[in-house]
Amino acid sequence: MYATDAEKLDVARHEALAGLEEGGIPIGAALFDADDRLLGSGRNQRVQGGNPALHGETSAFLNAGRQRSYRRTTMVTTLSPCWYCSGLVRQFNIGRVVIGENTTFYGGEDWLRENGVRVDVVQDPELVRIMTDFIAGNPELWNEDIGTLEL
Amino acid sequence: MYATDAEKLDVARHEALAGLEEGGIPIGAALFDADDRLLGSGRNQRVQGGNPALHGETSAFLNAGRQRSYRRTTMVTTLSPCWYCSGLVRQFNIGRVVIGENTTFYGGEDWLRENGVRVDVVQDPELVRIMTDFIAGNPELWNEDIGTLEL
Ligand SMILES: [Zn+2]
Ligand SMILES: [Zn+2]
Repeated sequence: MYATDAEKLDVARHEALAGLEEGGIPIGAALFDADDRLLGSGRNQRVQGGNPALHGETSAFLNAGRQRSYRRTTMVTTLSPCWYCSGLVRQFNIGRVVIGENTTFYGGEDWLRENGVRVDVVQDPELVRIMTDFIAGNPELWNEDIGTLEL
Repeated sequence: MYATDAEKLDVARHEALAGLEEGGIPIGAALFDADDRLLGSGRNQRVQGGNPALHGETSAFLNAGRQRSYRRTTMVTTLSPCWYCSGLVRQFNIGRVVIGENTTFYGGEDWLRENGVRVDVVQDPELVRIMTDFIAGNPELWNEDIGTLEL
């Protein structure tokens, strides 16, 4: 049971920190059901998994397995969801998104709100610091991950 | 080398038909580079892979491996891309999308055009027939795949 947003965010934070230790991009996410049960969590797998399709959110979604409905689920992610992950939320009608921070990257959260998703931002100082440091130290990798590397 | 759109679409069609034979949802996709080389192809893996995160497009994207830029790539998909897959295209700046048909499902293609993606629709009669038959025969599975199963 993960009753509070802070407890839920700690699951995503743990995934992000585990990713950082693996040499990966430190973004994690977790999906919870309406009764605050953890359905699945995951982290960005670009580096350690060689897998560009697994962002934090899509990794958590995958690890949650097949669900018949997502309307009453909550996706908790350490970082504002990119368009890819925002599209996931919208398509599967995930009802709520909790964002750890949106100062180092701002994704599709306004578009989600416009389409009826409840979005809350924690603005967690530790998560801001982790991503700020990571982007400063790995600008190419970061831009590859969000598709903005110009060639 | 897959010089024409018809040749490219046949790769996606082959994936869709292989999925159908496996008892899965018959949607396939393939990603090509600027020189018409196949980077990767894949198919919906909800049923046979138990994997709700792998739609045709995300499966092709995954199988293409890490790429430093997608701006000059073309994503060919048998069916109009859902919001999840449209978000993938937008986030990674995939330059062009070729859609086999958009009569059985209409996804985020207008949104992609508005955001600078070139989108072309083939309206292939065989693909329309395959999806029409599949949706009629498996309505629950189909609605689960596009997140519209109401519970
Ligand atoms: Zn993402
Ligand atoms: Zn899709």
